[in-house]
Amino acid sequence: MRTLYHLPLSPYCRKIRLVLGEKRLPFESVVERVWEERPEFYAMNPAGEVPVLVEDNGLVVPDSSVICEYLEEAYSDTPLLGRTLAERVEVRRLVAWFDQRFARDVSRRFIGERVMKRISGRGNPDGTVLREGYAAMKPHLKYINFLAENRNWLAGNFLSLADFTAAAHLSSLDFIGDIDWSKAPAVRDWYARMKSRPCFRPLLGDRVSGITPPDYYANLDF
Amino acid sequence: MRTLYHLPLSPYCRKIRLVLGEKRLPFESVVERVWEERPEFYAMNPAGEVPVLVEDNGLVVPDSSVICEYLEEAYSDTPLLGRTLAERVEVRRLVAWFDQRFARDVSRRFIGERVMKRISGRGNPDGTVLREGYAAMKPHLKYINFLAENRNWLAGNFLSLADFTAAAHLSSLDFIGDIDWSKAPAVRDWYARMKSRPCFRPLLGDRVSGITPPDYYANLDF
Repeated sequence: MRTLYHLPLSPYCRKIRLVLGEKRLPFESVVERVWEERPEFYAMNPAGEVPVLVEDNGLVVPDSSVICEYLEEAYSDTPLLGRTLAERVEVRRLVAWFDQRFARDVSRRFIGERVMKRISGRGNPDGTVLREGYAAMKPHLKYINFLAENRNWLAGNFLSLADFTAAAHLSSLDFIGDIDWSKAPAVRDWYARMKSRPCFRPLLGDRVSGITPPDYYANLDF
Repeated sequence: MRTLYHLPLSPYCRKIRLVLGEKRLPFESVVERVWEERPEFYAMNPAGEVPVLVEDNGLVVPDSSVICEYLEEAYSDTPLLGRTLAERVEVRRLVAWFDQRFARDVSRRFIGERVMKRISGRGNPDGTVLREGYAAMKPHLKYINFLAENRNWLAGNFLSLADFTAAAHLSSLDFIGDIDWSKAPAVRDWYARMKSRPCFRPLLGDRVSGITPPDYYANLDF
């Protein structure tokens, strides 16, 4: 059985779960506590990070960006990168935007402080880092709101990997209750559409010891 | 004319210059002083970072990973990602390794302290950061040496984007004289092969105000 090594609140892992679901590729998921530095896991992925996908034929595919390009090439029935060169540039540009810039400014601060510290037993969240995260989130939500107001989906007229990447990051933050949706109504509407897709259901059922998501987290109407 | 907005010592920009050269795609290069936050540049790339490639037809392609995937799709005559799915996974895995992990551990420390601070007038290098960089470089050189000893090229039997990515990072560090090549003989031999490729020539002629590369930087025999 195809296996995904992951952490439930990692945006990068959530993206792969969404993409596998959207492409209707069945998989078994295994939670990998990366901070325990399991030698067998390092043998599979010297980077020691999740997500790692292992195919039935034994092919090991690490790193969310590598996995997405791989899945797009190996299972092209549900294309998520667009058709034309220009479309594919815009999809990949936004994927890089969320996975690098949004991650650095926002996700890493909240997930690092509120989730990773708790589950790996490294103390309490640092208020300064969280305040920096809230400040950085405002212009980001404004930009996503601009995209959602002016396009059917974030990268254009078609559902793409840009939507799944953004939704993966926002869903992790939503789990820990750190998004003020009232400030970005178009993002909220777009995210409600994303949440209602079948591939999203497993994410909405996630349970993480010691962290209780807000009531609206799994509510399809918010 | 195809135009690349770049900074001479950015490993990400150097990679694109190498790939354009290897694919024999002529281009004009424009140095973009990103810290000046030129509005016209932000209009092209909201991330405000180099590299940005602008094609003759007006298509704007930002971000080195997006540019590489684009060039591979648009100009497939000189494929740099491998043929089989497994080859492409290994190439992209190593590209991500260098652009994320090696960059975070090593390149960013040296380029940030020795280059960016100088050219943007932000003071002197921080010795602590440089020492962290030297310490982090050792296991990285060991890993690249292991790859170079056991494979013809870093990702396998074929020259690939993994080689150009690694060479781009190492060439930036070599320019500022921060690599002890004697510790990694197989890396040195592999890098000499990379340096002798025609696409490398423009990089070896780079001049950066206030920074003088060591004599061996542009020497094809080291």
